[in-house]
Amino acid sequence: MTMYTLGDIAARFGLELRGDPATPIRGVATLANATAGQLGFLANPRYRAQIASTGAAAIVLRAADADGCKAATLIADDPYVAFARIAALYDKIPAAAAGAHPSAIIGAGARIAASASIGAFCVIDADAEVGDGAMLGPHCIVGRGCRIGAQARLVARVTLVQDVTLGKRVLVHPGAVIGADGFGIAFAKDHWEKVPQLGGVVIGDDSEIGANTTIDRGALGDTVIEEDVRLDNQIQIAHNVFIGAHTAMAGCSAVAGSARIGRYCLIGGGAGILGHLEIADRVTVTAMSLVTHSLREAGEYSSGTPIQSNRQWRRNAARFKHLDDFVRRSGAARREPES
Amino acid sequence: MTMYTLGDIAARFGLELRGDPATPIRGVATLANATAGQLGFLANPRYRAQIASTGAAAIVLRAADADGCKAATLIADDPYVAFARIAALYDKIPAAAAGAHPSAIIGAGARIAASASIGAFCVIDADAEVGDGAMLGPHCIVGRGCRIGAQARLVARVTLVQDVTLGKRVLVHPGAVIGADGFGIAFAKDHWEKVPQLGGVVIGDDSEIGANTTIDRGALGDTVIEEDVRLDNQIQIAHNVFIGAHTAMAGCSAVAGSARIGRYCLIGGGAGILGHLEIADRVTVTAMSLVTHSLREAGEYSSGTPIQSNRQWRRNAARFKHLDDFVRRSGAARREPES
Amino acid sequence: MTMYTLGDIAARFGLELRGDPATPIRGVATLANATAGQLGFLANPRYRAQIASTGAAAIVLRAADADGCKAATLIADDPYVAFARIAALYDKIPAAAAGAHPSAIIGAGARIAASASIGAFCVIDADAEVGDGAMLGPHCIVGRGCRIGAQARLVARVTLVQDVTLGKRVLVHPGAVIGADGFGIAFAKDHWEKVPQLGGVVIGDDSEIGANTTIDRGALGDTVIEEDVRLDNQIQIAHNVFIGAHTAMAGCSAVAGSARIGRYCLIGGGAGILGHLEIADRVTVTAMSLVTHSLREAGEYSSGTPIQSNRQWRRNAARFKHLDDFVRRSGAARREPES
Repeated sequence: MTMYTLGDIAARFGLELRGDPATPIRGVATLANATAGQLGFLANPRYRAQIASTGAAAIVLRAADADGCKAATLIADDPYVAFARIAALYDKIPAAAAGAHPSAIIGAGARIAASASIGAFCVIDADAEVGDGAMLGPHCIVGRGCRIGAQARLVARVTLVQDVTLGKRVLVHPGAVIGADGFGIAFAKDHWEKVPQLGGVVIGDDSEIGANTTIDRGALGDTVIEEDVRLDNQIQIAHNVFIGAHTAMAGCSAVAGSARIGRYCLIGGGAGILGHLEIADRVTVTAMSLVTHSLREAGEYSSGTPIQSNRQWRRNAARFKHLDDFVRRSGAARREPES
Repeated sequence: MTMYTLGDIAARFGLELRGDPATPIRGVATLANATAGQLGFLANPRYRAQIASTGAAAIVLRAADADGCKAATLIADDPYVAFARIAALYDKIPAAAAGAHPSAIIGAGARIAASASIGAFCVIDADAEVGDGAMLGPHCIVGRGCRIGAQARLVARVTLVQDVTLGKRVLVHPGAVIGADGFGIAFAKDHWEKVPQLGGVVIGDDSEIGANTTIDRGALGDTVIEEDVRLDNQIQIAHNVFIGAHTAMAGCSAVAGSARIGRYCLIGGGAGILGHLEIADRVTVTAMSLVTHSLREAGEYSSGTPIQSNRQWRRNAARFKHLDDFVRRSGAARREPES
Repeated sequence: MTMYTLGDIAARFGLELRGDPATPIRGVATLANATAGQLGFLANPRYRAQIASTGAAAIVLRAADADGCKAATLIADDPYVAFARIAALYDKIPAAAAGAHPSAIIGAGARIAASASIGAFCVIDADAEVGDGAMLGPHCIVGRGCRIGAQARLVARVTLVQDVTLGKRVLVHPGAVIGADGFGIAFAKDHWEKVPQLGGVVIGDDSEIGANTTIDRGALGDTVIEEDVRLDNQIQIAHNVFIGAHTAMAGCSAVAGSARIGRYCLIGGGAGILGHLEIADRVTVTAMSLVTHSLREAGEYSSGTPIQSNRQWRRNAARFKHLDDFVRRSGAARREPES
């Protein structure tokens, strides 16, 4: 079992310790659930009352929250970041031996680093490359022209279809499909013709791609995800999208073809971004909003209507259907007293 | 070919039979498509006119709908439930022999019940457990710390990433990913740091998980799906969500982290529920609504605007953009006559 | 390396050439990125200014755009369609040898055409059929009662669960799940009972199914996708849906059970269509709209509200919550002067 003392943790992460440095810490937990030997944290003020009742051996929190706290404390400017780093000590990612599982099928000529680990039933194209220390869990497919950076991790059942380049330490969760054909179709009088998709996908260092997320390869040129981009589950990124560094997108959001998203953006769950538009750096789009034109200024943007009882909503929604008529008539009515 | 008589069926499910008990029933069908030897049903009143024209050998329906019906009838308080049970007689789920397919890779020490069936190319961790009579179709992955209850069924290509516990008779459809890392990231001045995800997922007895649905494991503590929860395809359940027993969610709906949903709720297709909020028992959320605050009373809730011709919608939507200004000005205008 | 001359291309596709027919064309590119030896195209007027600066050896465009163009030109009525066809010359789909990879598991009795190609780790049921020249990439599952038409292509990791029929030249991208159980549940006083799903899925010739898209099989009778239907990624098609020929749906859209969609429809990204309704031919639904009733006339339809700064949106959204009250009071106010 993993064990560190409070003193170890304070020293390792440069935190001020108020309490006994010899206190053993065997794991991390929420304040509500922590028991003796566990470390809790307070980042979200809504849980402040739990400081009094927690069973945690120690708490990571801001100095301003520490006064009067009976438990031992580790003082952090940003308790959530500090907690993330401490918790990593207790995160036992399965060790994977270097080398390929005997069931893996690796094309002759594939360049696989000796320190890489290739799981059961992986299929790797002869024209693919896997970098130092990369870990591929079971059932991954690495297609033609794909390159996986050093220390990247494909947890399991990841599909890199074609011409995909993953940077260093990229983490991809199961079911993700990267490099499938973009949705390119041309209407020819009475039927569709497929537009060949000839580009690739480039994903920068330290990015994370969620479970069952899809990122299509470009039609011409590449789909580009810069470094430290964080994509949650079931996100759809269409061909030739560009996403700037450090942008984070929540589950089920989607970006249509050739849209360009800036750096440090936050895209809410289920939000949609139409194609061929631009979003500036540091834009926040709230959940389930639809972006239909470029957003050239940093800031927070929204669309939609508030949740209501269905009975109230029906009445308001019925009025929305005739809102323009109402406003026009109202304008006339308002002018009447003047005439 | 499966065959039961009408008398068999009436007796087995306690239904009143009006007609010849010796009538052979070889299958089930819609009223519109049923032919001789097939049983139809009437649950949705919009199809009542089909009673007169159906070719069905017999019809399952309410007593109130049976008068004047020329076909044989089976009288049920709830024809849809009765039909579900009868149809199950004709549902030939492929038999799967106990034991593991020779191509499956099962870690030494995994506890696999002798009566369980493990399909081709499954990969099961040494620290996993599969219960009595469980059926795993081809290409399933069962990771570290996962436990599959008795008679559970993973149809094919299901991924249980880590620390997932499935109850008895849980049914999981292809492409589902359960137990992947939750989307935990902490912003550290100029970049993101990953917050380790250390919890698991617990799914209660008799729950059903749709194709390509994702259920993340908890950050600290577990994501919990109680018993008899019914999740359709492509649903996203974030870390530390709690879903009460007997709740049903339609396709493409999504729940953000730490939200708590009650029992007997109905969540419409594409609906979204933000994080850290609570939804009472017996709440219905209509399709594509976004829940942005806790809903503490049972009832039906909605957001959005009605579908309209794009031309009409554009005019109304343009007015929505200035609705507050309009209301403020109108208030001033309305007061004018009084002044 | 693939090479055609401009003259080859003009002759093959019946385009008027203005320039030197001997010009070698080694690939295709956007106007912005094209270099010597590459062919560019101008379909979207927003990129017209790039004609002057492109490095392309030649440009596919309309006659009206060709005047004053210094580069060689290929004149097309529809440059995008022409480009699609030309680009196909340069699209090197990996050749796949006829026959099955030794690791594939094919049930005895499965009817596999000699010219079909079956990839690594495929699992094909004894009661399945694969047509002439069909290509199955690695990790495909073809379940009981499934039939794959001639020249169809399952790129990789496609799951055909049960009773799925794919027409000729159908193209299915990775992660798609076709033929899983529809979401049929009947509420029996205090719990759900599963309604057996006994139908199949039929997909017409030349249709394309995107990555991680799900198409459920029918409850009774089939889910039907006609010919030349184009489905992008992460689309959800519920049981017993019917989609008419030549309809295209963008990513993350969804159709609920038994809805019937016409021919030549365009369904925007993230749009939702409720169950048991009908959509006429040539209907366009804009992105993230929700269709709640049948649309019996061709045309364009929308719902939702425009994207705004969150500050403005909050004020307008707050007014929406009381819109009906406001309209009622306004009506009273407007009548006052008359009384």
